[in-house]
Amino acid sequence: MEINSKRLLQKLEELRKIGQYQTGVHRPAFSPTDMEARRWLVGEMEKAGLSAKIDGVGNVYGKAPKASKTILIGSHTDTVPQGGWLDGALGVMYGLEIARSRLESAPDSHVGVDVVSFQDEEGTYVGCLGSRSFCGVLEDRVVSEAVDSGSRKLTAALEAAGLVGVPRCTLDPQRHLAYLEAHIEQGPRLDQKQIPIGIVTGIVGIRRYQAVFRGRSDHAGTTPMHLRKDAGAALIRFANCLLEQFAGEGSADAVWNIGRIGFTPGVINVVPGEAHMSIEFRHLSLETLGRFEDMVETAAAEWGRNSTTECSATKTLVLEPISMHEGLGRALIRAAEARRVSSIKMPSGAGHDAMILARHLPTAMLFVPSIDGRSHDIAEDTSEHDIITGAQVLAEAVRITLEAEEAIH
Amino acid sequence: MEINSKRLLQKLEELRKIGQYQTGVHRPAFSPTDMEARRWLVGEMEKAGLSAKIDGVGNVYGKAPKASKTILIGSHTDTVPQGGWLDGALGVMYGLEIARSRLESAPDSHVGVDVVSFQDEEGTYVGCLGSRSFCGVLEDRVVSEAVDSGSRKLTAALEAAGLVGVPRCTLDPQRHLAYLEAHIEQGPRLDQKQIPIGIVTGIVGIRRYQAVFRGRSDHAGTTPMHLRKDAGAALIRFANCLLEQFAGEGSADAVWNIGRIGFTPGVINVVPGEAHMSIEFRHLSLETLGRFEDMVETAAAEWGRNSTTECSATKTLVLEPISMHEGLGRALIRAAEARRVSSIKMPSGAGHDAMILARHLPTAMLFVPSIDGRSHDIAEDTSEHDIITGAQVLAEAVRITLEAEEAIH
Repeated sequence: MEINSKRLLQKLEELRKIGQYQTGVHRPAFSPTDMEARRWLVGEMEKAGLSAKIDGVGNVYGKAPKASKTILIGSHTDTVPQGGWLDGALGVMYGLEIARSRLESAPDSHVGVDVVSFQDEEGTYVGCLGSRSFCGVLEDRVVSEAVDSGSRKLTAALEAAGLVGVPRCTLDPQRHLAYLEAHIEQGPRLDQKQIPIGIVTGIVGIRRYQAVFRGRSDHAGTTPMHLRKDAGAALIRFANCLLEQFAGEGSADAVWNIGRIGFTPGVINVVPGEAHMSIEFRHLSLETLGRFEDMVETAAAEWGRNSTTECSATKTLVLEPISMHEGLGRALIRAAEARRVSSIKMPSGAGHDAMILARHLPTAMLFVPSIDGRSHDIAEDTSEHDIITGAQVLAEAVRITLEAEEAIH
Repeated sequence: MEINSKRLLQKLEELRKIGQYQTGVHRPAFSPTDMEARRWLVGEMEKAGLSAKIDGVGNVYGKAPKASKTILIGSHTDTVPQGGWLDGALGVMYGLEIARSRLESAPDSHVGVDVVSFQDEEGTYVGCLGSRSFCGVLEDRVVSEAVDSGSRKLTAALEAAGLVGVPRCTLDPQRHLAYLEAHIEQGPRLDQKQIPIGIVTGIVGIRRYQAVFRGRSDHAGTTPMHLRKDAGAALIRFANCLLEQFAGEGSADAVWNIGRIGFTPGVINVVPGEAHMSIEFRHLSLETLGRFEDMVETAAAEWGRNSTTECSATKTLVLEPISMHEGLGRALIRAAEARRVSSIKMPSGAGHDAMILARHLPTAMLFVPSIDGRSHDIAEDTSEHDIITGAQVLAEAVRITLEAEEAIH
């Protein structure tokens, strides 16, 4: 099974024109451009010979009509506002091309390829809305309460898209053998090392904290230093100490970030009475996540003993890490070897629909390089050569897996 | 010359009702309540026997009608929004009561007391507008360009107050022997030490810097730590180091503040691409200010050598320190001794109209305690006992100074 590289690139370019914004695209979930892209995709799936539709939450799902066992390939075609042209679109177009090539080379096989573009992976309303719905883990309450940043309700968006009453497509354990998702790396590793294929070992767990320091606002000219309760200086000392502890922790691939910080009242000549910051860290291992949690919580708990300011650190997000399927990972490695291209194993530091699917189905992910590590930005790009290489490796892994399945049954 | 304490407290309470806001007052310069307070003050000055008017920038100036040499006593009756009831009002009411007592006890003396309430000390439009005008150091350009936080022009405020074409009162070196300003401390020292009188040695100089760090925004999940240019982490390390250096500097009475801080884009899962903070420090000595300046500028200049981020520190404010008049300071000490109350010498960490006057006239300041050090807030207060003690000490210093003047001429 050989894919048609030219056709793949052409379809990617066609999709790029829907919601084009400079060198990127603007297709937030349920926006007119997002729905236009989904309708276009239904048409392309049908041209490819799939039986396609938009389901009740906006997922586009294309079924191989004669197959009873399939590998599901996909990702998402919605984007962040003014985002990049590849992101999830790459994985969906890989799916379309591989399904089409499969139907061309083995039209009557009982094993085939289904394709999906999940809705709202980016969280315009609900992060991974479509894959949650597909896996049956989307609560009705979440749907009824969700709003976008402009307070528009998800239910209104569904109604405007004409999806009220439309059935939802769901995972079928009898049919779906595995889920494969290709995606741009969204980081600089592959690009820096000039390696075209990343084989994802797992998707990292995330912990977030909000640390708040409380002191007392005072006139910064008239209040002697020893009588201050300076929440801002407290935060700076605490943050510096925490960053040093994190850096000394020593786990490979651990990442952390203090992305948001603020002082109240935030005036040049007033001692900050309150100060807050966000703390985030990510890792594949629960044990490492636990060590980072300990550092934050111990530092916060011990703060009051040596300071005139109070400190609290509240956990605001827990996302557990999830491993990718080892057998599928080995198939991807074999596929890269068969195509004679180099690959490395790596964790995914960002969330993906695969993180939802992996709890229900053997799941694997393949990364292609992001030039300069850029993503979620109009500067996002991947070379044509790398786009084609990624598709060829994924197609080879599909071939290997389907042949094994055919041999068994 | 004995002041009438009951009358002083009564006049303070009357003024407090103009623009009352809960336990504080709201009289920003040129607001209706500010102008009402100024018209009320003209009436009170005339009742006290002074010749009074509102000048062309809103200063209220009351002259002792028969005196040819006077001590000028005053401060300001404008406030910050929703500010405290005493602040500058205290010093103006001290002036009114002392001038009235002087006229009652020595109605025909050629040495007397003039009273002033300067306009806009708080900088609603231009900080120390009135005292700058009075000392002849207010540039026309400053007046024509000034706006308040709501973009209302000062020239419009002057027109609305009916002050266009009204002459400005100015310092008269032949007439004005000295300027005395009483004020609440606006800090906690006197209150903590239970000392009723602070004799101000000088008004501190101020330096302000804006430090900016530039790195690169990246995805905080997918960018390995060693490939980041984290402007936020850079700022935290820099600020922590600077605060340690400041604390180790060792000058008594030095104060510093990091009051404002911000990261861009300021998102929990994005590595900050830019970060900024304000730095301020104050001291009476130019040498100490210079040492602090060196610390900031050296740290900023050396930053680039050990970091992937860039740092710049721009000086945004230079206000030179100014000493109070030693002879007048001695008169205040003698006055406190004569009234058998304790006093301490201290710098003023905040700016006052006295800082403008001191460059043109022998000038001294007296502080009374601020309960809990609070000011520029409706919680601002001073005990009745301390209010009266302050007035008595200031009146005694005026008596000593006027008698010395009478004896010479």
